[in-house]
Amino acid sequence: MFTIAKAKSEYGIWSSDQPTLAAPGRGMVMVDVIAAGICGTDFHIYRWDEWSSSRIKTPMTIGHEFVGTISAIGEDVAGFEIGERVSAECHIACGECALCRTGNTHICEKTEIIGVDRPGAFAEQVLIPATNLWKVPDVIPNRQAAVFDPVGNAMHMVTTAKVTARDVLIVGGGPIGLFAAAIAKSHGARTVVVQEPNQARAAIANSLDLDLVVNPRQEESRSEILKVTEARGPDVVLEVSGNGAALNAALDIAAPGATVALLGIPGGPVELDLGGKVVMKGISLIGVTGRRMYETWFQVEAFMLKNPELIDKVITHILPAKDFAEGFKLMEDGACGKVVLDFQSLKTGTVQ
Amino acid sequence: MFTIAKAKSEYGIWSSDQPTLAAPGRGMVMVDVIAAGICGTDFHIYRWDEWSSSRIKTPMTIGHEFVGTISAIGEDVAGFEIGERVSAECHIACGECALCRTGNTHICEKTEIIGVDRPGAFAEQVLIPATNLWKVPDVIPNRQAAVFDPVGNAMHMVTTAKVTARDVLIVGGGPIGLFAAAIAKSHGARTVVVQEPNQARAAIANSLDLDLVVNPRQEESRSEILKVTEARGPDVVLEVSGNGAALNAALDIAAPGATVALLGIPGGPVELDLGGKVVMKGISLIGVTGRRMYETWFQVEAFMLKNPELIDKVITHILPAKDFAEGFKLMEDGACGKVVLDFQSLKTGTVQ
Amino acid sequence: MFTIAKAKSEYGIWSSDQPTLAAPGRGMVMVDVIAAGICGTDFHIYRWDEWSSSRIKTPMTIGHEFVGTISAIGEDVAGFEIGERVSAECHIACGECALCRTGNTHICEKTEIIGVDRPGAFAEQVLIPATNLWKVPDVIPNRQAAVFDPVGNAMHMVTTAKVTARDVLIVGGGPIGLFAAAIAKSHGARTVVVQEPNQARAAIANSLDLDLVVNPRQEESRSEILKVTEARGPDVVLEVSGNGAALNAALDIAAPGATVALLGIPGGPVELDLGGKVVMKGISLIGVTGRRMYETWFQVEAFMLKNPELIDKVITHILPAKDFAEGFKLMEDGACGKVVLDFQSLKTGTVQ
Amino acid sequence: MFTIAKAKSEYGIWSSDQPTLAAPGRGMVMVDVIAAGICGTDFHIYRWDEWSSSRIKTPMTIGHEFVGTISAIGEDVAGFEIGERVSAECHIACGECALCRTGNTHICEKTEIIGVDRPGAFAEQVLIPATNLWKVPDVIPNRQAAVFDPVGNAMHMVTTAKVTARDVLIVGGGPIGLFAAAIAKSHGARTVVVQEPNQARAAIANSLDLDLVVNPRQEESRSEILKVTEARGPDVVLEVSGNGAALNAALDIAAPGATVALLGIPGGPVELDLGGKVVMKGISLIGVTGRRMYETWFQVEAFMLKNPELIDKVITHILPAKDFAEGFKLMEDGACGKVVLDFQSLKTGTVQ
Repeated sequence: MFTIAKAKSEYGIWSSDQPTLAAPGRGMVMVDVIAAGICGTDFHIYRWDEWSSSRIKTPMTIGHEFVGTISAIGEDVAGFEIGERVSAECHIACGECALCRTGNTHICEKTEIIGVDRPGAFAEQVLIPATNLWKVPDVIPNRQAAVFDPVGNAMHMVTTAKVTARDVLIVGGGPIGLFAAAIAKSHGARTVVVQEPNQARAAIANSLDLDLVVNPRQEESRSEILKVTEARGPDVVLEVSGNGAALNAALDIAAPGATVALLGIPGGPVELDLGGKVVMKGISLIGVTGRRMYETWFQVEAFMLKNPELIDKVITHILPAKDFAEGFKLMEDGACGKVVLDFQSLKTGTVQ
Repeated sequence: MFTIAKAKSEYGIWSSDQPTLAAPGRGMVMVDVIAAGICGTDFHIYRWDEWSSSRIKTPMTIGHEFVGTISAIGEDVAGFEIGERVSAECHIACGECALCRTGNTHICEKTEIIGVDRPGAFAEQVLIPATNLWKVPDVIPNRQAAVFDPVGNAMHMVTTAKVTARDVLIVGGGPIGLFAAAIAKSHGARTVVVQEPNQARAAIANSLDLDLVVNPRQEESRSEILKVTEARGPDVVLEVSGNGAALNAALDIAAPGATVALLGIPGGPVELDLGGKVVMKGISLIGVTGRRMYETWFQVEAFMLKNPELIDKVITHILPAKDFAEGFKLMEDGACGKVVLDFQSLKTGTVQ
Repeated sequence: MFTIAKAKSEYGIWSSDQPTLAAPGRGMVMVDVIAAGICGTDFHIYRWDEWSSSRIKTPMTIGHEFVGTISAIGEDVAGFEIGERVSAECHIACGECALCRTGNTHICEKTEIIGVDRPGAFAEQVLIPATNLWKVPDVIPNRQAAVFDPVGNAMHMVTTAKVTARDVLIVGGGPIGLFAAAIAKSHGARTVVVQEPNQARAAIANSLDLDLVVNPRQEESRSEILKVTEARGPDVVLEVSGNGAALNAALDIAAPGATVALLGIPGGPVELDLGGKVVMKGISLIGVTGRRMYETWFQVEAFMLKNPELIDKVITHILPAKDFAEGFKLMEDGACGKVVLDFQSLKTGTVQ
Repeated sequence: MFTIAKAKSEYGIWSSDQPTLAAPGRGMVMVDVIAAGICGTDFHIYRWDEWSSSRIKTPMTIGHEFVGTISAIGEDVAGFEIGERVSAECHIACGECALCRTGNTHICEKTEIIGVDRPGAFAEQVLIPATNLWKVPDVIPNRQAAVFDPVGNAMHMVTTAKVTARDVLIVGGGPIGLFAAAIAKSHGARTVVVQEPNQARAAIANSLDLDLVVNPRQEESRSEILKVTEARGPDVVLEVSGNGAALNAALDIAAPGATVALLGIPGGPVELDLGGKVVMKGISLIGVTGRRMYETWFQVEAFMLKNPELIDKVITHILPAKDFAEGFKLMEDGACGKVVLDFQSLKTGTVQ
């Protein structure tokens, strides 16, 4: 079958023809992939940065945000049928540690991730534990169902930070930042500001009808943010850029008592003025990773059902799976929102 | 009257004979000081570090944690009588900003602090807004009533971090860390560990009957902490040292999902591995300053009434106010827990 | 001046000509009333039911939800100017009890209410403590500014119940229920259902573009609610009707773990199956009264600025103040949403 | 093997000799019971009240709070070994519904309870899903390990109500009320009051060194509670009695804003003054059932390790399993705290 894999320990990503997967074992389900999104994590693996090169054992089929159809079901799986359309939580937690047993499955230290530690979803078929499947309502189209996972990252961040009636600054207008902006707005934020230097992404942010989109490289961005928040500064910051300087600038402008959710992964250590900007201002920095299993999924589904047009504004490209190289190139250029690969096209020859 | 003041812009602190204060204005109350604790903030001012030298206008009478007796009452003050024994919240907030109007008075940006921005309590008399007074129950002795404020810092930190049934690591065994240890224990923490290199302070921690007191300079401290937490690592860290290296070590050992309350003020910027230690571990760093007005005060009073012996273990010295220099010397040497100055001794000639 | 007052201890309400108010005392402000809403509480007083007849001392000018212009300012009031447009929190709390000192001012046991315990806002002028004023942004029109208070009741209820991504059943489609529906929708509720037997009010609910409006007198209402919540039943119930039977029906259909906010005041004791419907289902019943001071006001302003059209759908009548009797008749008939009285018309002769 | 079962549909409970259980199936574990507590639920079944007679299909081996030794392990069970000492969560939830998938397993509507819907633990052997086992630390003695479940009910109630620094009134001094009192004290409650008319139980409460134990049948009990709470009334009520009159009295005395946790199951509907006592006072009534899986278990273990002497004060009787009739008689008379049955005595002939 067609797969997109990290075949070599160097910059890049390659397609290959792999044998069809063996039948699913106990508790497992085989899913024929319909569509899959390219995640920032996939791009990290593509670039073969420090994190990915130290964690991934090549060759590894990548990809973990997807929708597909159940094609085979292992023993001891109840509640699923061949042909059902599903997405899936890509974090396979141990289920037995203290974290898993107290509702913190998303930070289990023994987690294996599909497309990182196990064969992923950039393939015609993928094997998933039944516990991790999410049934997709009929009204959600494939391109949206393929991105439950990153919308889930955004949802986890937004619900953790509690945005209702508060002034929200989103640092970074990539797909997760853009989804977060849409969610924050739909959860009753007082104002939503996206800060993004890339003009293509700023344009997408502008299409979401937010209160302000600013370019942090322009000096007046700071005063514009203060103006829209009536001089108080944002009381919620959603940091998706991983940029240390941007985080420091956000802490500087944030209102005392602000909640700062951290989702972006900086490339190295970050220097912070903890005394003046965090302790004395009574600010909280909250690390957010993955999705709450499965509260976040219920929240994402509710959001998608109400706001399909917002999801579609962030999905800028749907490419045939065979054109994956173009997708990665778009991400390299920052000239896109979310890029979705269509795997059905491998059979039908056309993008749905 | 006798006062202890920052008279000159240089290292040190000096006593002086000042005129008696004018009668209290509208909404104000005059308090004859009985006893006052020396705070870490007073020690910062003594050392004339960057923060204090940039904020304080000399000459300034310092001191802000105290107990005294009401000796005069201004107009429009209801509910207080001459002779009542009171302590006081030293943060005078504006009462009108969005933070003050939403229960976040403790981080009001216009706050003035007694003994920092206004004449303080290291004096025979001090003027306090009636709103900031706290009536002291008869059964609480003066030496304990004098430290409502720092016990309040500790209480604010402990209640913010939520310690019940969790493994708590306290980084720094000065007075606030020691009070926090006593409070965490009384709030049902699963284990309480204090990390402190100074042997005098470690000895006080040992007297509190905690689960472990470790010296971070000894290599085995890490394995000892892991042992007492059954290899999970602490899920609550209370950072009172302001030491960046200690914070990084704590983030390293902390369990995923841990809450890290930050109260200590580092001397400069701190480098943190936000990606690996905060985001991916789902950890929260929560800046804590001052005391919640006045929820924290109710909590402190409840704690003091139940656990007077724990407060007394942390108060290691009660000195005549005239011997204040000895008190600051003790703090310089780290050879003490909380040091309380007795101002009644100025009249009686003996320490109570 | 023109006032609408409870002049006699019997069913009804009457206008009268009263002397102009004395100048505001210390901390007080005089407001020339522009417009005022008729509250359910005013209607209770009109009907002279058990609660109102036992609490109110006639004669009493009623009315407490309003907007007006500052016309005089007492001593010791900072931050306000003659001519500013303001609304006000009608609960005058003591400010000194344990509840007031811990952020629970809205349930202070010594609260006095404007228009209930003190002369109210159905008058050309009203006196208000400066602490209770709320400055109204220019873009909010008078008719909307007049109803900050009831939108605040609804906001307090919705934020207490936490509706984001949850299925919300609102029991009772009077003004507060309708405002709550609009707010729940704007805070990202998964579904919003209003249950209301009165057809005029159901029609207003229908105009809010909710997921479902049901008539509880029709048998199929229960199955319709279950259908829209995918058989789970609502996990949030907002009880605004004060109807015991409706509450029991809601507890019956509610999902286990549901949050039930209670704002409606039943006419007498209510019989509940606490064992089967509350304890075993793990349901929470949360009494909600007044507005959080002043967090709720910030939230209401944020909502009004974003959703003015939703407020306007609930305000069905704006009447000249002299036609107040018609307003009370509308409420008697249930043939209205919110009714606002225009007090400027007393001077201009026309409704704005 | 020896079992204690509801053999007939009438008042009473009987022992019987049953065949040894079949080997455990997939995911299941067989436990040889060491000791088991008699729960209020067992007593309901004994009395054959409305709830138990409508739910239980006779014959049914009862009992669900216990400790034992693993004697056989089914397929697909990891992490357990023959000979390990375990207790177990008796609620077998479905694991697939929305409640189970969002951390609310304890209110799953498809739950089956050991000793109610499946053969229970008042037997020499019992079969338990491996997911529901809890490994017992060596230092916890059998009599205490047998009561993890009811201590868990108490812990769930106390942690839900949040007692730290608050005044706690516990209505009902049976085993769960007594455990709750001990836990509330260890979590830093400001005051703990137990209200209990039965003198034997009041005596146990007195042994816990609480702030007050009152007899609700004595008129002065109300004023005594007000005195110990300094006239504010309790701000936490833990209702364990299921007595409607007691609940109404508690609502009457409770402070505005109080949290009232409901765990006791009334015999029928309860009439409440919702308007005056719940809505206007801003009180929350929170139904509490079962134990959070498995957060509560971690909390209980932490409490037991620190406070073994408090558990022992509530366990008043340890009887040979063959003397179960005496145990039920003690409960009928209310002449006991927790009664534990020793099943090892069936083999050894002596109580451990």
